[in-house]
Amino acid sequence: MKQIFTFCLLFASLFGLAQSAEKQLIEYVNPMAGTQRMGHTFPGATVPFGAVQLSPDTDTIPYAVNGKYTGRAYEYCAGYQYDDPTIVGFSHTHFSGTGHSDLGDFLIMPTTGKLQLNPGTEDNPQSGYRSRYMRESEIAEPNYYKVNLQDYDITAEFTTTTRVGFHQYTFPKNEEAHIILDLMHGIYNYDGKNVWTFVRVENDSLITGYRQTNGWARTRTVYFAMQFNKSFKNYGHKKYDDGVYKGFYRKFDEEHNFPEMAGHDLRAYFNFDVKKGEQILVKFAMSSVSTEGAMKNLNQEIPGWNFEEVKQAGQQMWNDELGRIQIESLNESDKRVFYTALYHTYLSPIIYEDVDGQYRGLDQNIHQSEDFTNYTIFSLWDTYRSLHPLFNLIQPERNRDMVKSMLAHYDQSVHPMLPVWSHYANENWCMIGYHSVSVIADAIMKGVYTDDLDQALEACVGTATYPKYDGLDYYMKLGFVPEDKNGSSVSKTLEYAYDDWCIVQIAGITEAYQTFDEFMERSKNFFNVFDAESGFMRPRLSDSTFRPEFDPLDTHGQGFIEGNAWNYGLYIPHDPERLVELMGGKAAFTAKLDTLYAMQLSDAHIANNEDITRDGIIGLYVHGNEPGHHIPYLYNWTGSPWKSQQRVRMICETMYKDAPDGLCGNDDCGQMSAWYVFSALGFYPVCPGSEDYAIGSPTVVSATVKLSKRKTLIITTENQSPENVYVQELSFNGRAIEDFTIRHSELMRGGELKFVMGAKPMK
Amino acid sequence: MKQIFTFCLLFASLFGLAQSAEKQLIEYVNPMAGTQRMGHTFPGATVPFGAVQLSPDTDTIPYAVNGKYTGRAYEYCAGYQYDDPTIVGFSHTHFSGTGHSDLGDFLIMPTTGKLQLNPGTEDNPQSGYRSRYMRESEIAEPNYYKVNLQDYDITAEFTTTTRVGFHQYTFPKNEEAHIILDLMHGIYNYDGKNVWTFVRVENDSLITGYRQTNGWARTRTVYFAMQFNKSFKNYGHKKYDDGVYKGFYRKFDEEHNFPEMAGHDLRAYFNFDVKKGEQILVKFAMSSVSTEGAMKNLNQEIPGWNFEEVKQAGQQMWNDELGRIQIESLNESDKRVFYTALYHTYLSPIIYEDVDGQYRGLDQNIHQSEDFTNYTIFSLWDTYRSLHPLFNLIQPERNRDMVKSMLAHYDQSVHPMLPVWSHYANENWCMIGYHSVSVIADAIMKGVYTDDLDQALEACVGTATYPKYDGLDYYMKLGFVPEDKNGSSVSKTLEYAYDDWCIVQIAGITEAYQTFDEFMERSKNFFNVFDAESGFMRPRLSDSTFRPEFDPLDTHGQGFIEGNAWNYGLYIPHDPERLVELMGGKAAFTAKLDTLYAMQLSDAHIANNEDITRDGIIGLYVHGNEPGHHIPYLYNWTGSPWKSQQRVRMICETMYKDAPDGLCGNDDCGQMSAWYVFSALGFYPVCPGSEDYAIGSPTVVSATVKLSKRKTLIITTENQSPENVYVQELSFNGRAIEDFTIRHSELMRGGELKFVMGAKPMK
Repeated sequence: MKQIFTFCLLFASLFGLAQSAEKQLIEYVNPMAGTQRMGHTFPGATVPFGAVQLSPDTDTIPYAVNGKYTGRAYEYCAGYQYDDPTIVGFSHTHFSGTGHSDLGDFLIMPTTGKLQLNPGTEDNPQSGYRSRYMRESEIAEPNYYKVNLQDYDITAEFTTTTRVGFHQYTFPKNEEAHIILDLMHGIYNYDGKNVWTFVRVENDSLITGYRQTNGWARTRTVYFAMQFNKSFKNYGHKKYDDGVYKGFYRKFDEEHNFPEMAGHDLRAYFNFDVKKGEQILVKFAMSSVSTEGAMKNLNQEIPGWNFEEVKQAGQQMWNDELGRIQIESLNESDKRVFYTALYHTYLSPIIYEDVDGQYRGLDQNIHQSEDFTNYTIFSLWDTYRSLHPLFNLIQPERNRDMVKSMLAHYDQSVHPMLPVWSHYANENWCMIGYHSVSVIADAIMKGVYTDDLDQALEACVGTATYPKYDGLDYYMKLGFVPEDKNGSSVSKTLEYAYDDWCIVQIAGITEAYQTFDEFMERSKNFFNVFDAESGFMRPRLSDSTFRPEFDPLDTHGQGFIEGNAWNYGLYIPHDPERLVELMGGKAAFTAKLDTLYAMQLSDAHIANNEDITRDGIIGLYVHGNEPGHHIPYLYNWTGSPWKSQQRVRMICETMYKDAPDGLCGNDDCGQMSAWYVFSALGFYPVCPGSEDYAIGSPTVVSATVKLSKRKTLIITTENQSPENVYVQELSFNGRAIEDFTIRHSELMRGGELKFVMGAKPMK
Repeated sequence: MKQIFTFCLLFASLFGLAQSAEKQLIEYVNPMAGTQRMGHTFPGATVPFGAVQLSPDTDTIPYAVNGKYTGRAYEYCAGYQYDDPTIVGFSHTHFSGTGHSDLGDFLIMPTTGKLQLNPGTEDNPQSGYRSRYMRESEIAEPNYYKVNLQDYDITAEFTTTTRVGFHQYTFPKNEEAHIILDLMHGIYNYDGKNVWTFVRVENDSLITGYRQTNGWARTRTVYFAMQFNKSFKNYGHKKYDDGVYKGFYRKFDEEHNFPEMAGHDLRAYFNFDVKKGEQILVKFAMSSVSTEGAMKNLNQEIPGWNFEEVKQAGQQMWNDELGRIQIESLNESDKRVFYTALYHTYLSPIIYEDVDGQYRGLDQNIHQSEDFTNYTIFSLWDTYRSLHPLFNLIQPERNRDMVKSMLAHYDQSVHPMLPVWSHYANENWCMIGYHSVSVIADAIMKGVYTDDLDQALEACVGTATYPKYDGLDYYMKLGFVPEDKNGSSVSKTLEYAYDDWCIVQIAGITEAYQTFDEFMERSKNFFNVFDAESGFMRPRLSDSTFRPEFDPLDTHGQGFIEGNAWNYGLYIPHDPERLVELMGGKAAFTAKLDTLYAMQLSDAHIANNEDITRDGIIGLYVHGNEPGHHIPYLYNWTGSPWKSQQRVRMICETMYKDAPDGLCGNDDCGQMSAWYVFSALGFYPVCPGSEDYAIGSPTVVSATVKLSKRKTLIITTENQSPENVYVQELSFNGRAIEDFTIRHSELMRGGELKFVMGAKPMK
C-alpha cells in the first residue's frame, strides 16, 4: 500500500499533478505573513524575482530628521506595518525583510474631493491624501493586491510583470479624481535624500522621468514611464525645494499643465473626470538605464490594458516557480507556511536589466548582460547561508546568473571587491564578511557555475586581500582582526576564516595550489580568537592579548555584530569537528548547546540591537537573526543528532506561522524563509561551499523537488506526525544513510530520500 | 598696376598664400580682447567650436548666497576678469561673452607647500590654494594659454583638442606637489548648485566621474576622465556637505586613499613628489554620455603625452578656420581686431557629442547623431542676427549641422519647441523670441540646409504656435502681446512678427500655402504695437489701449527687454520700408536716426540693466547689446546710405580694439564679433531669412573669402583709408551695384566685390 502511494506520488509529480486540480499553489501563499512586527515583508504584488514590487506603504516615518535618527524607521523597512490604520499610497520598489532600508520609489495614490498633495498623518488622515482602509477589504495574493481606500471608497488593485506595475482604480461615483505621483516619498527617507527628480509629461496620458536618491545606495537613479488608459484633463505639481535656482523658468506657470518638472522634491498630480464604476488604469514601468529603457519595458511587457490577463500570467509564473517543490503536509497550515516561505525566497535578488539586457552598472555606465540575466539586491551576510544554496537546488539557472551578476559587479567596481551588500548598482557596505565567495564556491562545488573558474577565483582572492576592507589589513598581518582597531572583530575573524575556506575549495578545483595553501592557512584563523581560558571566542587586541573586559552575554560591543560569544561564537561552519574539540569535546559541547537554549538573554543584553527581538529568541539562541542559523544542526557533530531534530522541528513549528506575525524576525531577503524550506524538507547546508547537507527533521509528509527537466528528488516520510519528530531511519534510493549527512551531487541524481520518523530519539 | 595687384591677390589667395609665410593667422588673434570690463570672453585654450574650453578663473563670486543675488557674479560670466590679481584655477567649460552664466566645470589647480583645499580670497590668496600671477608671465594664443603661478612659481600651460584639455605644470624645485580637483567650483555658483558629484580613482593615475548641476541648465551632468602622466603617491578628498547620509561608508577612512568619492560638494587632491623642472601633465576628457564616453574621447583624441604636438595640431586647426577669410588691412591693429573677432565667432556653438557621435539629449536619453555633428550653446536671441548668417557664408557645413542640432532639440523636447537659449541638453528659456526659425529660414534660403524642409517647417510652426510660450497665446489671439499680461510685450511682438516672416519664407519654398498666408498675416503684427500719436512702438494692454504710462527712454519696464522705444522700437528687419513709413517717411526717419545717435541715455535710464553699459553706448544707440545691431544700416532705407557707412565705420573703429577692453559689451557667443566681421567686409545681413545684405563701409583693404573648395569671393577696395569711409562705387564682377544691396546667392558664385572709397559721401 505504501509503495503504491509512493509510486502514485512519483507518477503524479512527474506530470505536475501532485496538487489537486482545484487548488493552485499560489492559494497556499500568504503574502501578509511577516508584515506584522519585525518580519519586514511586504504584501504587495510582484512576479518571482520581479524588479517591480508594487506594494502599499502604511507610513512615512523618516529615517532621520535634521540629521537625527528618529528610531522608528526600522519598523518600515518594507513600507508596511500590518497594524497601521492608514495607507499612504502604493510604491513600486521594496526590500523583502531587510533590517536597514531604502527604495519606496514612485508612490501613487488615487484620491477624490479636494486635492491634497501632502500625505497627512495616521492620526488625521483627512489632513492629507492618505486613506483609512478596512482589513476585510484587503486581498493579498502572489502578484495581486487589492484594498478599498475607505476615505474615498476607491477600490485599488495591483498586479505586475517583471518591470511594470499595473494599477487599477475603480471609482464609486461621478466625480473628479486625482492620481497623485509623490516623488518625495521614499523608505528610510531623510532631508536631502532626493538628489534630483526629472519629469516630463510627454502627452495627455504618458509621463516619463527619473528619481535620483542618495541613501543606502549612495548614487542611485531609477527611470520610469507611466501610462494612463485615459487622458487626464489637467495636471500640475508642487515643489518643496525653494532653495533651487529657478532661472528663466520663472517665465512660466510651471505648476499648472507645464510638461517639465524638475527639482529635489516634488509631487505631481493628474486630474480626471470619472463616472460611477469607471476604472482608471496605470502602467508604471521602471528602468535603471533611461526613460527610453522604461518605455521599451512598458511596451514589451504590457502592450495592452487587460489587467486580468497580466495578473493571471504573473500568477502562472508563481505556480510554476512554486511548483519546483510540491509537498504534501500534515495539515493545511503547514502547507501554507511552506509555500509562503518558498514565496519569500523568490522576492530577491531581483532582475536588474531592461528587456534588451541593458543595465546601469556600479560604475554608473550602461552595460549589456551578454549571456546571463543581471540581478541586484544581494544581502549576502544573510543569504549565503541557505538562500543561495536553496537556489542551487531548485533555481540553478538563476543562481548561475546571480554569480555572473556578482562577477560583473567585481569587474565594474573600483575596488577589487565582489559585492558585500549591493543593490541597484551600489555597494552599501552593510554587515561584514566577503560572503560572495561562499555563494560562488557553493555554486562551483555544486556544478551550477561552470563558466570561467579562474576569473571567479581571481575575483574571490582580490576581494579577500583588499587591505582597505573592514580590518582585512590587520587580519592578513595578525591572523585576526584586533578589536581595538576594528570593532566586531571576532565576528569578522570567524567569518573571514570561513570565507577563506570557500576560496580554498575554488583553488582546489582550479589547481591554484599556492592560493590553496595560503587560504587553507587563513581558514584556520578562528583559532586565533579562541580563548581557552574562558572557553569562548573572544575579542583580541592588536598587542595579541585578549581584551580584559568581556561579557559573553551582551550582544553589543563584545567583538560580535548583532550577537554575543554564546550565539555568534559557535561559528566555524567549515570545521565543526574543531569547534566541538575547542569547546571541550562532544559531551561538553552538547551541554553548551543545551545551555544555550536554556538560558535567558536579558533586555539589557539585547538593547541597541534592532535585529534581535524577543519574537525570535529561544534561550540565548536568536533565530530571528542569522548568525546562529546553523546552530540547531550542530548536535549532528556531538553524537546527538536527535537533539538537532527536536530543535529544528520545534523552531519550524514555533517561529513560522501562517499569520501576519508569522516571522520571528527580519526575513532578510529570504534567508529566514530559506532556512524553513530546507528544514521542512529535512536537511540543511551547514557549510555552503561544501556539498554536504546535515539532517534535521522534515515537517513535510512528502515532497517532490524538480531538479531539472528530467530529474526529480522525492522526499518521503513514514510515520510522519507532530510527535514523531525523530528520524529512525534514513535512506537514499534504498541505501541507508548512517552518518546523517547527504551530499548535493547524490541528491541531484534524483530518486527517493526516505525518512522513517518516530516519537523517540534514536540514540 | 592695380589690376596686377588684384590678380596677384587672387592668385595668392587661391593657393592659400595671402599671408606672408613668416606670420600665421593665429598671431593676429588676441584672446585677451574682451576679458576686461564687460566683454565676458575668456583667454584660455580651445580649438574652433571645441567642447573643452580650458581657461583660468580669477574669482569665484557666487551668483547667490542664501538665496540672495550677490550682484557681482555678472562680471564673472566667463570666469576671468583681466584686472584681478589672482587665479583660482583652471576650469574646462566656459561661455564666451554671455550675460548670464553657468559652467566652470572641473577646476584644477597645482600647488605646493601646505595642502589647502579652499580657494582662499583675492585679498588673502595665501589663505587658500589660489595664486597671484604676473601679467608678464601670461601668454594667450588660440589653443594655448600659459601663466606663472607666482605663489608657487609653477608654470602652467594649457592646450586642448575638441573634447580633451591638456595641462602641463612645471615645478621649480624638489618638493611635494598637489594637484587639486575642485568639484565645488563653478560659474554662477550658489548654495545647492552642485546636485551630485561622483568620482572614482580607477588606478594610481586615472580618475573618472561626473558633476551634476542645477543652474541655468536645470538638469545637467558632465562626465570626465582625468589622466596623469605619473602615478600620484597618495590622494584624498574632503566633503563639504555634512547633510548627506553616510550609510556604511562610515566603516572606511573615506577621506584618504579611498577610491570612491560621492556627495554634493567635494574637493579632491592628488599628491606627487616632483623634482626641480619636472613636469606633471594632465589629460582631462569630458563627455555628456558617460565616463566610458570620456575615456573614448581621451584615448582617441590624445593617445600620447606630446603637449607641443597637441598644441600645434589645434593651432593648425585655427589657422585653417581663420584662413577662410584672409584679409589685408590698413594696419596691423585692424588685422588683429579682425582676426580676434573671427576667433570669437568660432567659440560657440560648441561640438556636443562624443567621438562616436553619442550625446545626451534634452530628454536626458542618449542619442546618436546619424548624419551630422551635434552642437550645443545656442544663444539665439543674439546669434541669429549675424553669427549664423556669417556661418552660412564661411561655415556652411557647420551651420547645416547646427540646424540639424536644433531640429534634434525639437524632436527631443517635451514642448513642441525649437531652442530658445539652449546649452548642454537643456533649454534655459533665456531672453525672448523663437529665433531658431530665423536661423533655419536663413540656412534654407541660402541653400545651406537642404534636408527635410517639411520637417523643418513643422518644427518652426510648432514653435510659433505653442500657447504656453511667453505670451504667444495672447499674441495669437490679439495680434500682440499685452503688457499687462506679459512683460517686454513690445519686444516680443516685434520679434515674433519678424520670426513669423521667417516662417513665411520656408512655407513659400515648401509650398505650404495655408501656413504661408497665416504667417504672412502674423508677420504684420508690428503694426499692432505702433502708436501713431507718439510715433513710437509702445506697450499695449489686453483691452487694446496703449498703456498710459510710457517713457521711451527708460530701458526698464517700458515694454522692451534690455532696451527702450528709441533703440528697440526700430525693429522691423523684414520690412524696413514700412518702418520708415510708420516713422514718418525717409526724412523724418533719417532725423530720428540722427537724434538717436545724438541724444544721451541717463544713468537712471539704464539702471537695472546689466547688459547696457556705458562702454557700448553712442547716444541712445547701444552697440554693446544686440537689439539695435541692424540700426546703423537703416540709413540705407532712407536714401542716405552714406550715413550708414559713416556710422558703421565709426563703430568698427571705436567699439572694437586690440586690447583687453576691446569689446564694448558682452560678446554674446560671438554675435558682437560677427557684426564686426561682416561690417569689416563691407556688408551686413539686416534681415536673416532674406538673401539680401546691406552695404556699409569695409575696413579691410581686401579680403579673400573661401566659399567652398572651388569658389572664392574677393573683396577689394580702392582708395581705402581711415578717412575714406564713404563708398563711391560698388560693383560685383564688374557689374555696378546701384541699390547698395547684394544677394547671398550672387556672392556665392564667387568673384570680386569691388568698393571704391572716398572721403565724401555720395549723396
